Amino acid sequence: MTEDAFLSGLFERFPPVTGEVPVPPGDDCAAIDVGHGRWLLLAVDQLIGDRHFVASGPGAALPEEAGAKLLARNLSDIAAMGGKPSFCLIAGAFGPACSADWVERFHQGILDLAARYGVTVIGGDLAATPNDTVASLTIVGEVPAGQAVCRHGAAAGDDLWCTGVYGQSLSTGHHLNFTPRCAEGLWLREHAFARAMIDVSDGVLLDLNRLCRASGVGVDISTADIPRRTTETSMAEALGDGEDYELLVAVSAANRTALREAWPFATRLTRIGSFAGDT
Amino acid sequence: MTEDAFLSGLFERFPPVTGEVPVPPGDDCAAIDVGHGRWLLLAVDQLIGDRHFVASGPGAALPEEAGAKLLARNLSDIAAMGGKPSFCLIAGAFGPACSADWVERFHQGILDLAARYGVTVIGGDLAATPNDTVASLTIVGEVPAGQAVCRHGAAAGDDLWCTGVYGQSLSTGHHLNFTPRCAEGLWLREHAFARAMIDVSDGVLLDLNRLCRASGVGVDISTADIPRRTTETSMAEALGDGEDYELLVAVSAANRTALREAWPFATRLTRIGSFAGDT
Repeated sequence: MTEDAFLSGLFERFPPVTGEVPVPPGDDCAAIDVGHGRWLLLAVDQLIGDRHFVASGPGAALPEEAGAKLLARNLSDIAAMGGKPSFCLIAGAFGPACSADWVERFHQGILDLAARYGVTVIGGDLAATPNDTVASLTIVGEVPAGQAVCRHGAAAGDDLWCTGVYGQSLSTGHHLNFTPRCAEGLWLREHAFARAMIDVSDGVLLDLNRLCRASGVGVDISTADIPRRTTETSMAEALGDGEDYELLVAVSAANRTALREAWPFATRLTRIGSFAGDT
Repeated sequence: MTEDAFLSGLFERFPPVTGEVPVPPGDDCAAIDVGHGRWLLLAVDQLIGDRHFVASGPGAALPEEAGAKLLARNLSDIAAMGGKPSFCLIAGAFGPACSADWVERFHQGILDLAARYGVTVIGGDLAATPNDTVASLTIVGEVPAGQAVCRHGAAAGDDLWCTGVYGQSLSTGHHLNFTPRCAEGLWLREHAFARAMIDVSDGVLLDLNRLCRASGVGVDISTADIPRRTTETSMAEALGDGEDYELLVAVSAANRTALREAWPFATRLTRIGSFAGDT
């Protein structure tokens, strides 16, 4: 069973979410309505030693890089909702191979990135494990009520755009030093371009499929147009590797020129396909 | 270095928290001010296989018990602030010894307890680890603005009260089936009895010391009065074992009789000491 299927099954066993949870779990973040025109966005993500980063030996990630990656993954989820990150809580469980210095530097990596994104750490828990290092981070962000960009907003005829370049995230080290697309995601929402959005953590094909399923649409993608990370990156790697932490965005075709002309970022923005009726 | 010292050091490296975070990290929960008279309470706690529950072999916890314990620990943190729990997010990382059925039942344990406490699960993440099982849960609760019961509110002369009984939590299985004192904590706040409160997770002496340090007071405790879990429980066990998940509460001595007469719960409530000037 996939994580998607498991979590869907889990969430379905709950009574239907009320108006207090206008975006139920299953999107990049859930939203809770705190009233007076304000939604909070919440998500949790984990980082596993020797799964999401090399914990020791040759090629080991710096502890600061591992910590920053944990927060950056969560920032990417806020970006994909068009939100602004505000707070986070950290739970770290460290194996016997982690020295006190390593643990300290891991947290410093989180703190430094948090400061850059205006995020305040409001909670933490520390534990020791028999073997593995596992850390989770819960991010809290904000979006005006009713304006979260969800996965389900794409319509047939919309253009599919993507930020950045894809593939070979692990071999190039991109997964340890990427820039979460918070500014881009926020701008795409504030300028009413984004009808649906998702961040690419598990690969373009897999995450695009999630967006299509949520929106009830199909998609035609020009695979040759997908920007590749390096000249050595294959199309298969760009489509499937994952850990790109870029945004896939559905934008009305009527806004094609307007978006291209207004885009204020150095970040590459590429139109890579069109949504179609569900097939 | 203790977890307290480490986390204090971590949080101190941040700019001072603003009015948006009226209760900074370091208490049982942090509070964020969402405006219009409402504070949200947030905390994160972890559960480590073979540390917080026996994961396999003789005496292994049921997966439902382990899941429920993870949520219950967090509910106890909300209780200690006098709050009402609302939402949670779960991050589970499971080792190779955990079958799909085990993982499913672990989550079911959380869901069942969540339903009993009116808590909605709004996020989840699933991962696999090389060895260990580590799960964390972030709880979100609510309290009227300005009314969170913090650790720092005890004054010299206040009585020290405690709920429940203490000691031998592990050997009796209490740590897997305790009732978080949400109703009691909420009542103590709503009836303006609680001036300071903390839940006992690491032992009466250790958690009481945290409350005293935060309040800048000392305490005289009648150790003989501390209710023990069984007739076999020693005073040392009652004072030091931990995992009781009961509440220690500072109440004005002027309210001694009023509290005793108004207490509406079957849960035992015992006066075990008095706060004194810091020595």
